[in-house]
Amino acid sequence: MPARTPDVDIGALTGLIGYMLRRAQIAVFQDVFRAFAEVGIRPAQFSVLTVIAHNPGRTQSQVAAALGIKRTNFVALIDSLERRGLAERRPAPSDRRSHALHLTEAGRMTVRRLNRMVEKLEAGMIRRIGRHRRAVLLDLLARLSEP
Amino acid sequence: MPARTPDVDIGALTGLIGYMLRRAQIAVFQDVFRAFAEVGIRPAQFSVLTVIAHNPGRTQSQVAAALGIKRTNFVALIDSLERRGLAERRPAPSDRRSHALHLTEAGRMTVRRLNRMVEKLEAGMIRRIGRHRRAVLLDLLARLSEP
Repeated sequence: MPARTPDVDIGALTGLIGYMLRRAQIAVFQDVFRAFAEVGIRPAQFSVLTVIAHNPGRTQSQVAAALGIKRTNFVALIDSLERRGLAERRPAPSDRRSHALHLTEAGRMTVRRLNRMVEKLEAGMIRRIGRHRRAVLLDLLARLSEP
Repeated sequence: MPARTPDVDIGALTGLIGYMLRRAQIAVFQDVFRAFAEVGIRPAQFSVLTVIAHNPGRTQSQVAAALGIKRTNFVALIDSLERRGLAERRPAPSDRRSHALHLTEAGRMTVRRLNRMVEKLEAGMIRRIGRHRRAVLLDLLARLSEP
């Protein structure tokens, strides 16, 4: 019988919140990327589309700040959504130097389609952790996200 | 009085595990990157160094599999650690075509220094979530990471 190779012990890492947070995020986002690829949308684009859908007419800087996205990255994100015909910049009524963000009709349809995917993905995660622990997890993650 | 701009509502996102997981991971890793920059080490390099420290002599494929890192990415990671003089590949005694991974003395010193940083970072996270909820969070994250 060949000598059995003992398992590699990664216990020094699985006890770390930082490491386990990254591993869970990578695992979850593999599924998200796969689902969203069908629509050619990345997770960050989904977040922006969702926030514009719920807050039409807000300026670029307001939406960027709410999502904690840096200005240059945010401008590139909006450019990509505008090129795809999903969102558009219009002059803001309050300050014509800034841009108010709106979804197009195609953008609203895409958001509805993405939301159905997200519902399924979230249901899968909730099955893994147990329904009654969803609120606990969201609360813990919010505490870690606070500046 | 100027018209007050209502806050941007991102409630449609903060109820999603996927979104909150990503936000928490980004917030936590900002601190990790800042701390590790002092030693010029990235989080993935820290994980590899830690696993080699606890499992000296394992092959590249064993360590890569335990960490869930793709082979090509893992080879590049080991290359970078070897160039820095922190880890080394030696022929594996059981199979001379494969490489056994070991830390150098400099690698062991770096791991000790990184561990002191990680202890502080983890203590900060535990303060945010409450000491008694650390085990709960680790368990929930492990469930989300399972393949």
